[in-house]
Amino acid sequence: MNEKLVHFKEIMAEVADLKAAAAVLSWDQQVNMPPGGAEARGNQLATLSRLAHQAFTTDEVGKLLEALRSNEAALSPDEAAMVRVAGRDFDKATRVPSSFVAELAVVSTQAHEAWVEARKKSDFPIFRPHLEKVVELTHKYISFFPPADHPYDVLLDDYEPGMKTAEVTAIFDSLRPPQVRLIRQIAQAKQVRDAFLHKKFDERKLWDFGVEVVSRFGYDWERGRQDKAAHPFETSFSVNDVRITTRFEADHPLAILFSTMHEAGHGMYEQGNDPSYERTPLHHGASLAVHESQSRLWENLVGRSLPFWRYFFPRLKRLFPSQLGNVDLRTFYKAINKVEPSLIRVNADEATYNLHIMLRLELEIAMVDGQLAVKDLPQIWNEKMKEYLGIVPPNDALGVLQDIHWSGGMLGYFSTYALGNLISLQLWEKIRRDIPDLDEQFRRGKFEALLAWLHANVHQHGRRHDPQELVQRVTGSKITPEPYVRYLTEKYSGIYEL
Amino acid sequence: MNEKLVHFKEIMAEVADLKAAAAVLSWDQQVNMPPGGAEARGNQLATLSRLAHQAFTTDEVGKLLEALRSNEAALSPDEAAMVRVAGRDFDKATRVPSSFVAELAVVSTQAHEAWVEARKKSDFPIFRPHLEKVVELTHKYISFFPPADHPYDVLLDDYEPGMKTAEVTAIFDSLRPPQVRLIRQIAQAKQVRDAFLHKKFDERKLWDFGVEVVSRFGYDWERGRQDKAAHPFETSFSVNDVRITTRFEADHPLAILFSTMHEAGHGMYEQGNDPSYERTPLHHGASLAVHESQSRLWENLVGRSLPFWRYFFPRLKRLFPSQLGNVDLRTFYKAINKVEPSLIRVNADEATYNLHIMLRLELEIAMVDGQLAVKDLPQIWNEKMKEYLGIVPPNDALGVLQDIHWSGGMLGYFSTYALGNLISLQLWEKIRRDIPDLDEQFRRGKFEALLAWLHANVHQHGRRHDPQELVQRVTGSKITPEPYVRYLTEKYSGIYEL
Repeated sequence: MNEKLVHFKEIMAEVADLKAAAAVLSWDQQVNMPPGGAEARGNQLATLSRLAHQAFTTDEVGKLLEALRSNEAALSPDEAAMVRVAGRDFDKATRVPSSFVAELAVVSTQAHEAWVEARKKSDFPIFRPHLEKVVELTHKYISFFPPADHPYDVLLDDYEPGMKTAEVTAIFDSLRPPQVRLIRQIAQAKQVRDAFLHKKFDERKLWDFGVEVVSRFGYDWERGRQDKAAHPFETSFSVNDVRITTRFEADHPLAILFSTMHEAGHGMYEQGNDPSYERTPLHHGASLAVHESQSRLWENLVGRSLPFWRYFFPRLKRLFPSQLGNVDLRTFYKAINKVEPSLIRVNADEATYNLHIMLRLELEIAMVDGQLAVKDLPQIWNEKMKEYLGIVPPNDALGVLQDIHWSGGMLGYFSTYALGNLISLQLWEKIRRDIPDLDEQFRRGKFEALLAWLHANVHQHGRRHDPQELVQRVTGSKITPEPYVRYLTEKYSGIYEL
Repeated sequence: MNEKLVHFKEIMAEVADLKAAAAVLSWDQQVNMPPGGAEARGNQLATLSRLAHQAFTTDEVGKLLEALRSNEAALSPDEAAMVRVAGRDFDKATRVPSSFVAELAVVSTQAHEAWVEARKKSDFPIFRPHLEKVVELTHKYISFFPPADHPYDVLLDDYEPGMKTAEVTAIFDSLRPPQVRLIRQIAQAKQVRDAFLHKKFDERKLWDFGVEVVSRFGYDWERGRQDKAAHPFETSFSVNDVRITTRFEADHPLAILFSTMHEAGHGMYEQGNDPSYERTPLHHGASLAVHESQSRLWENLVGRSLPFWRYFFPRLKRLFPSQLGNVDLRTFYKAINKVEPSLIRVNADEATYNLHIMLRLELEIAMVDGQLAVKDLPQIWNEKMKEYLGIVPPNDALGVLQDIHWSGGMLGYFSTYALGNLISLQLWEKIRRDIPDLDEQFRRGKFEALLAWLHANVHQHGRRHDPQELVQRVTGSKITPEPYVRYLTEKYSGIYEL
């Protein structure tokens, strides 16, 4: 038995090494690679991913999993979790034929190219046949799995293990009315001014300030680094090598700061993993939503809070006297929390963000259901934008064509962003009970207690618990929108004097 | 038959991808990796190298090679070369048991650590037992191969395919007397002044100047990049992704410039490979010596020549008026070519460099022969330094402990550095016949003709020819020291008015 476990772990370690190597190559591709390297890099990544898949889906692994499962009593709790998580991954990886994976890779590569062109020209018909093919393949993908309560469950489960479509729609159904109501109230209130945020800011100084902030948070530079990339992201090759990227946008200079906090939030999750999970199926995060709860927590609940800026605003002001010299703390705080229904999801503020997600989720479910044809997407998109946010995109580039996800075959992904917001607030209410003087600590630039809490309750567990199970264990309840609604209402009532 | 060839190429492509991925991980380790990442990176690299070895050494590959060899008439010349080169690699890889490879990895990791400590403390006895073990394993390694004319042939062949110990010693025996004589003459001549080279120079400006120089050479930045690293090196993951590194040393500020030219010389070799060789056994360079001939050619024959500096010195002077304002071209040229017997190989000038190599080669051969015991190394080292260079290291850190190679089990490597120098001059004499106005071109900052010549005669061929065969094809003779001796004599007679 012990021999089998050792052998199982060896194979898992090999698979983990191959995936980590692929992650290094992807990071390099986005951060360093000269343009000429793209074709060869594609081959290298394809080989690594094929070998990782091959090594993981052998009959031998299947038999080892079976043997270990039938002897679960002999396993430690961590080992049992490892077998459970690997078993789920194995089931998925073996259900889907490699021929399908190869077909999807080809289709989504072409769809991606078409999407880039379609978005550039704001011409949905260029993308339409490709998206139709993606939806067709998505149906085929679902068909490899046993019938679920809802076909969309199969997609959701890839990003949020164990999560059901019915659960997500119930959550969003109860979240939508109060959130739409709040936005309408804000729209009628006196607007905040934020023109000073769009002055010219020096990129280097903001970069350094961001580094100072996340160093205080506890992001460990001995086990990480930050680089520039076209899209901010976090990636990790080890508990001890967790990297983040950011970017500077002249139109939204301070965005670099929030992006650094966001990605460092992801990064501290990975740096906080139990080191013994490295090279096992338990390494990394419980789900995308739980991961997003960490990034949002640091970016929004900490980084857009008044106590945080009580400590940091005087420093920022010293760095940028001409831009912020006449701005007081409260004005600055309001400005960075300004609510404004907008067309683009990634630029949306806290109050409107979830509505962008709900719109996408509803469209995805309808497409998977067969209720919505791809050709009707642009029209429905615009109708829902009007309904939820009160604005209509002037063209499809600023509407239905804005996101990359569908071109890559990633249906089922979007809801994790919104669920992450909800989880962050459930954790937050618990944290505030456990650390009553949190605001006072932030005011003094202290974040150790918060990070230690997150390490103990979330980070160290890696993939050991399913997301719902983790949230339940830590907060006493499954994923639920109430704390988030309470937070938004209270925060924006203050800012907009509702 | 065609099916077998296709399958053979598929396997070779997979092996090449794994090696390229490992090269990316190594580059990252030396350029970017945060300190914490070291342990996981070691695991990832070990897995990639094990999988590449496994994929390459299967019975299937053996049978494919046999089948292809027995049908050589059906192969194109490139395919036949591919099978020949892969066959040689396969023979080596399958003769050496994996248990030995694993043992050597452990021994050399420990030996490396011991060497670091020994060098730091200048205490040879710390390193001695480890080096004894390395020499023992080297004997064992040799025993896996059929008896050669000389046991050292086996080692040499790993770095210079087809090269014999007798050939190398004959070359060096005829090189040593004139080179020692030249250095003695120089020692008695009027010395050149170079104090101005050791003033303070701005790193960034020198970096940019180096980039300008190698851009003019033809190093393609669309397919490459330069970064800082502890040790300058070149590495390539594709014909279209070839990277170089450099470093700045405050004591030798201009060294960054020559290091950039040197590594770009390696890089242009890789960038000039026939693109169809990518992912095949013919990718990369013919041997270490041929590779070194390219780096030395650009660094020394171009980069330390008078015509080159006729074009670039006015520019360098404009960048550094306070350091070089009073220095004329001829004085500068003499200074960067100053000859001074010194203790450390990597800092040696062109005239003394090869003597450092000969010393090492003689000691290696004697150790492999059993004529020299490890315990006697420091004494013999110092005696030979006295004999060849007229100086004696004050301690072993500056003597026998200076190089990393032996700690890594790399006996047989050193001679490639000197052979590279010799090859560079054989090529150079041919180039000057083929491009009679080369000096005039350099004077105008033109290097296209030189690079085109090297592409056509050396670079594009990748590993298709063995080094001796390549040199013979291009220059009409095997590796020979005469052109190098002629060059040194003429160059230094001018500089030192001998």
